[in-house]
Order: sequence, then C-alpha cells, then structure tokens
Amino acid sequence: MSASTLDVPTTTRRSFGNAVGLTCRACGARQELGPFYACIECFGPLEVRYDFPTITREQIEAGPKSIWRYQPLLPVPADIAAIPNTDPGFTRLVKADNLARELGIKTLWVKDDSGNPTHSFKDRVVAVALSAARELGKTVLACPSTGNLANAVAAAAARAGIRSVVFIPENLERPKVITTAVYGGTLVAVRGNYDDVNKLASEIAGEEEDWAFVNVNVRPYYAEGSKTLAYETAEQLGWRLPEQVVIPVASGSQLTKVDKGFTELGELGLVEPTPYRIFGAQATGCSPVAQAFRDGHDVVRPVKPDTIAKSLAIGNPADGPYVLDTCRRTGGAVEDVSDDEVRDGIQLLARTEGIFAETAGGVTIATLKKLLETGQLDPDAETVVFNTGDGLKTLDAVADRVGPAATIDPSYPDFVAADLA
Amino acid sequence: MSASTLDVPTTTRRSFGNAVGLTCRACGARQELGPFYACIECFGPLEVRYDFPTITREQIEAGPKSIWRYQPLLPVPADIAAIPNTDPGFTRLVKADNLARELGIKTLWVKDDSGNPTHSFKDRVVAVALSAARELGKTVLACPSTGNLANAVAAAAARAGIRSVVFIPENLERPKVITTAVYGGTLVAVRGNYDDVNKLASEIAGEEEDWAFVNVNVRPYYAEGSKTLAYETAEQLGWRLPEQVVIPVASGSQLTKVDKGFTELGELGLVEPTPYRIFGAQATGCSPVAQAFRDGHDVVRPVKPDTIAKSLAIGNPADGPYVLDTCRRTGGAVEDVSDDEVRDGIQLLARTEGIFAETAGGVTIATLKKLLETGQLDPDAETVVFNTGDGLKTLDAVADRVGPAATIDPSYPDFVAADLA
Repeated sequence: MSASTLDVPTTTRRSFGNAVGLTCRACGARQELGPFYACIECFGPLEVRYDFPTITREQIEAGPKSIWRYQPLLPVPADIAAIPNTDPGFTRLVKADNLARELGIKTLWVKDDSGNPTHSFKDRVVAVALSAARELGKTVLACPSTGNLANAVAAAAARAGIRSVVFIPENLERPKVITTAVYGGTLVAVRGNYDDVNKLASEIAGEEEDWAFVNVNVRPYYAEGSKTLAYETAEQLGWRLPEQVVIPVASGSQLTKVDKGFTELGELGLVEPTPYRIFGAQATGCSPVAQAFRDGHDVVRPVKPDTIAKSLAIGNPADGPYVLDTCRRTGGAVEDVSDDEVRDGIQLLARTEGIFAETAGGVTIATLKKLLETGQLDPDAETVVFNTGDGLKTLDAVADRVGPAATIDPSYPDFVAADLA
Repeated sequence: MSASTLDVPTTTRRSFGNAVGLTCRACGARQELGPFYACIECFGPLEVRYDFPTITREQIEAGPKSIWRYQPLLPVPADIAAIPNTDPGFTRLVKADNLARELGIKTLWVKDDSGNPTHSFKDRVVAVALSAARELGKTVLACPSTGNLANAVAAAAARAGIRSVVFIPENLERPKVITTAVYGGTLVAVRGNYDDVNKLASEIAGEEEDWAFVNVNVRPYYAEGSKTLAYETAEQLGWRLPEQVVIPVASGSQLTKVDKGFTELGELGLVEPTPYRIFGAQATGCSPVAQAFRDGHDVVRPVKPDTIAKSLAIGNPADGPYVLDTCRRTGGAVEDVSDDEVRDGIQLLARTEGIFAETAGGVTIATLKKLLETGQLDPDAETVVFNTGDGLKTLDAVADRVGPAATIDPSYPDFVAADLA
C-alpha cells in the first residue's frame, strides 16, 4: 500500500485528541497522523507527537475510573469514554509492606495490572489501538499473538462490535485457544512458530487495507497505551513520581513509554519533575537487552528464546536500544533471572501480598530481589514494580511446587492427629 | 464453646463501625456482636444490625475506590482501608448494548465482578469476614471450599499476614488446588465430598476457638459483604436503583443481601426508594429454589447437585426461604437453565460484550434470556445482571465449543485461499 492512499484528511485529525503527528524516533523526521509505523525517510520506528494544552489534576481526577481519565494525554478522541470499549486501567497500586520487609526495602508498591478486563496490561494498549483503528476507518482488528494480546484483541473487538482476526501458532496450548476463541472472533491457526505467524501478519497488514494489526500498522498508537501505567502510578502516589521502577522487558515498548509518561507529567506541571531510575527485568532464557546492558553495547543481539516467561519471550526486541538508553540515562539497569527464580518470584509475591502473578510478574519480582541483593537498587528509595499479568494464565509455572500440606479423613480426631492446628 | 466465653467487651464493639448487634432472622431475638451465627433462642440464622448516623453521597464518593467507600454501612472499623487487605470491589458496571440488542431488552447493565483481586465476588465477603476475624481476636482464617472461596481466603490471609487453612475435597481439580496453594497458606485435602468437608469444618469451628471460618462462625459479617454489590450498582447508575436485577443463587445469601443493600440506601435517603424486582438464577442440575418458587412452596427441598455450575452447586441452600420471600415480595421470580444453556450464556456474553464469565455468569445470562422469552422480565425496564466470577476458572465449560476457524500455512496465498478476509 502506498502512503498517499492512506493519507488522512486534516479534518479527521481531531479524532486523535491532542496528537498532531508522528515523529521518527531514529531520524526525527515528521509525518502526518495515519496508519504508518515506519519512517518514510529512514524506516525508523514512529512515535506519536502532541501539542498539549493546559491539563490539570482536577480535570483528570474528575474523569472516568479507567485509562480514559488521561484522554488529553493520549491519541484518542475527547468522547472516547462514551464509545464502547473494555475501559481498562486504573488498577490497584498495592502498598507491599510484607514483601518489602522480606526483601529489606523501605517503601515498595506493586502496580497490579491483573485487574484489567482480560487480566493483563495488554488491555491498555489494545484499547488505544482500537480507537486508532476506528478513527482510521479500519474494519478489522487483528494481531499475531500467543497469549495476553490475543485475549485482549478478541475481547475488545467483541465489545466494540467489530470483527477480530487473531493469528496463533498451530501448537498453542488449548487454554490459550479457549480464552481467545470464546469471544467469537476469527481465530486462525498457522502451521509454524511465532516468528512465522508474525511474518505472515506483517505480510497481510501490507495487503489488506481495512485491517488494523494492533502491534504492526497501528503500533505507534498502541504503544502510547503503556504511558497510562506511568500516569496512574504517579496519580495514585498522590501526584508524585517514584524514585525507582522495575518493569518487565519484552519488546521494551512498555518501559520506554513509562519513561515518556513520567516525563510528560513533569513537563505539564502535573507532578514535580523529580529524578527517577528505571530498571528492566528479563528472564535469562530471553535476555538480549540485559546482556547488551552488561556488555556496554548500544545494540541488542537477537536470541532464540527458551524460558517459561512466554509473554516476555521476544528474542529480537524492537525497542531494545531505547531500553538501554533509558535505563542508562536514568541511572537504572537491566537484569535477568533464571526460570527457577521466576517461580520463586511468583510464590514470593503470592505468599506475601496475596497477588498471583503470571510468569512475567515473577520475572519482575525476582529481578527486584536480585537488584537489591547486588546493590544496584537503593533499598531506601521508594520503588514501584509492575505486575503486568495474571497467574491464572500460567498455572504450569508453579504446578509442581504447591499442593496440600496433608490429606486427612473427614473427622476431627484425624484433623487433630495431622497436627495442623 | 459457650456463648459467655466469647462475649465481646463493650469497648471492642467500636471496631464494628456502625454495627450494634446481631438479630435472628427467624425469631427477631437480639444478640451481642460476637463470633455467633445461630440464635441462642431458636438456632435461626443471625444478621448484623446497625444504628446508622447520617451518611451522604459526598462522604462515600470521597472514599477509596473499593468496597471500603461504604465503610459506614458495613460491620468494619472506620480505619478499615488502612489495614492491609485485598481492597476488593468498585468493579465495572458495563452498559451492555450489544447484548441488550440481541436479547430485545431496552437498557441492560452487567456488573462485572471478575475484576476483583481473585476474580470473583468472594473477595468482597471474605474481606469483611477477615475484618471481623481480626476484631474478634481470631488468628486463623479458614473455610471449606471447592473454588472461588478458597482462592479468596488464601489470598486475603496472605495479604493480611495471618494464617489461612483451607479444606478441600481430595479429588479437587489440579488448577483449583494450584490457585489456592500458591498463596502459601495451609491447604488440607479431605477424603470425601464437599458435604464431608463442610461437616468437618463446622466441627473444627466448634473446637478451635482461635479460628474464624469465614462462612461458618463469622458468617453474619461475611454475608454483609454482598451488600456492596447493591451499593456500587446504585452509585454507578448515578445514585438510583435499577428496576430489575438478575442474581445467581447458591446459598441465596447474595440475593437477599442485595435486597438489604437497596433497602438501606432508600431508608438512608441516598437514593429515591423506587420499586425494584429481584430475580434469582439457578442451574437446572441444582435448582431447589427455582423448583420451590414454581411449586409455590415456602421451604426448599434439598437436592443432590449435578451441574457444570459448580460454584452454585449448593443442594441445601441456607437462605433458600429468604430468596423465595424476596423474589415474591418484589414481584420477581426464580428460574433455572440447563447446562447447555449455561454454555450458550457464557459464549453470548463473551461474543457481545467481551466479558468471559465463569459458569455462574453463564447461568445468570441464560436465565436473563429465559425470563425475557417467558415474559417474566419486562424488556422495557432497566435491568442489571451480576457476573460473579471469571471464565478463566471454568475453561472446561466451553472447551469443546470454540476453536480456530481454519489452519493455514504461513503464506499470504494460503491465507487468501482460506477466504478469511
């Protein structure tokens, strides 16, 4: 498809709120708002550019209890909350005193995104992508996925009353097939691995003009959804920035967008622009960014993923270099942890705070622990960690580790004999 | 244990907020606040009694975004939100226009409790039970359960830093074991069915003075948690009552407490006390209350449950007679639906609104449909249905019904040939 056929008339631009264009993150070239994801000059990744008016805390606080309270900061129309969508966000920020005590850190918070409609942070990005798709006149919402994204796209499309087409590898586990197919969109199994599925999706995105692949041709909008994690964290802390955050790294987009979100809040005067350090978390079985950080490299060497943290298993992370830059610039780091540490992390968070995280959350908690043990994280600085998904989706990770303490007969004497009281 | 040893000194009563005592629902006898669940006069079930001060909408709206915004209406201390707990509630009220259109009903809302911390309404009741346990000096939070309640108790206790002991039938499905055991409390498998486990729990509750079985010896407090579903529904509608509500019936406690909640709001002047009709929903395989309603009986004849809606499978529902009374008094009804209709209901809600409900939610949606088809529910009256749990916990219900539309090779020509565009 050529750029010209997809140019959006100026009058339509109002439907992207305060967004005014796209900017190449590599060369800085500017482009119109539209279904573009690669710079026409250098093929670099595009990012949404805004012209923000004055935005006040009161204005935000009066908004809906979802990501749409931050509508003025997102590329979505002013009436977005009134258009049927899953209304994700404004999830709990949990003061994690038990976990803090166990890890020897002073002030710790868990931003728990398992409370989203399909129980992962993907509901945030998909909601913004859905809006962009609608404003750009797309009639199909699509994605390649192996899990959380598939659930989020299928659910959001159902709610919005538009068609979804989700592409999955043929050998995907049955529970993940069910949790996507139940929403009634079109599910397509592809003979191949995730890379094959992903490549096919890009090919289709280039051919089917009416299709919005959330993480391909509307990716610049989609990615902006992650900024809401930063906005909510700051607002829920009482309109201030934390001193340290630990964020899981898959493509790396979320981490860079949280940085963007914190920066915007400071620039707009919504928070004091106090310094913060951003830390990235990976599983050792897919840790190309952590490796590059340790090696002092600016580029990321792709790897073949081999970890239980499937939702983070992107071997060639698109935003890897930006993650390195962000973590170095803010005085943070990128670390990785073994699959056994991931399992420990899941159990540690569940046991201390009653939050059952998916493997990605286990990666983050285990990385937090490692960063503290290795002195990279300051135990006296206020810290926020992100739990981006739900343990119900990755039961296998801990299946062999937990179970009944005893099996008894249904009688009080047998209960007493088991010495459980 | 004798009543006298458990009498609570007057000074402690302040810790139950505006609650002033317990009242027998059968004979009206009054009792002190304490770990009591049966009337000393007639062994009837006890209910919490309040002496409410003036409570304003503004006061509630200024509170936390959880059930604790309704603290003045619950038997919990004024500082409850500051005491570590899972902070359940204030879940989405979703305007279900797609579903409404499909069913031919004018105005329909889904109160979606799958957004709670452990993804069912049980987090609400357990949070109130936990507070009562704490105020009564209990040191162990316990329950017999086969699912949602087990998850909620184990998570709430972990977060609160107190011990939990959960009793389950030995043959419970592995996923349900994992989602409880991961929180690190004591899980006890019992050789027997749920009835055996339940009987054992009552026996232990009578022997272990320090144990609070949430649904046994602190049940009057526990049950009050369900009132928050009514409060939230009314507040989220803009401080008014719906004209019709459809509520799943297991023990029947939730349905009667929603009625109590609506009544209280009217009496306190927080809403206009407009009339409403309450409808109960059961699965045919465990429908003793629906049967009694049809037969015009006041009492409920126990049944042996046989349905996929396991979270509603209580064959001898404690609040059955009160459900009959509530539904008759308000002009509602109690209906039941087959397991196949339950599966249809799950798929219908997912397909139209992007909400994946557990089997209990399928029962409610299917019952809504049946009530409309049989003319028992007014299609022109504003209606709210409760989805009380999450489809991720009952995947088997729809496993045989959904799947990929096609399996293709990873090539654009093969995609085109499959005719999916």
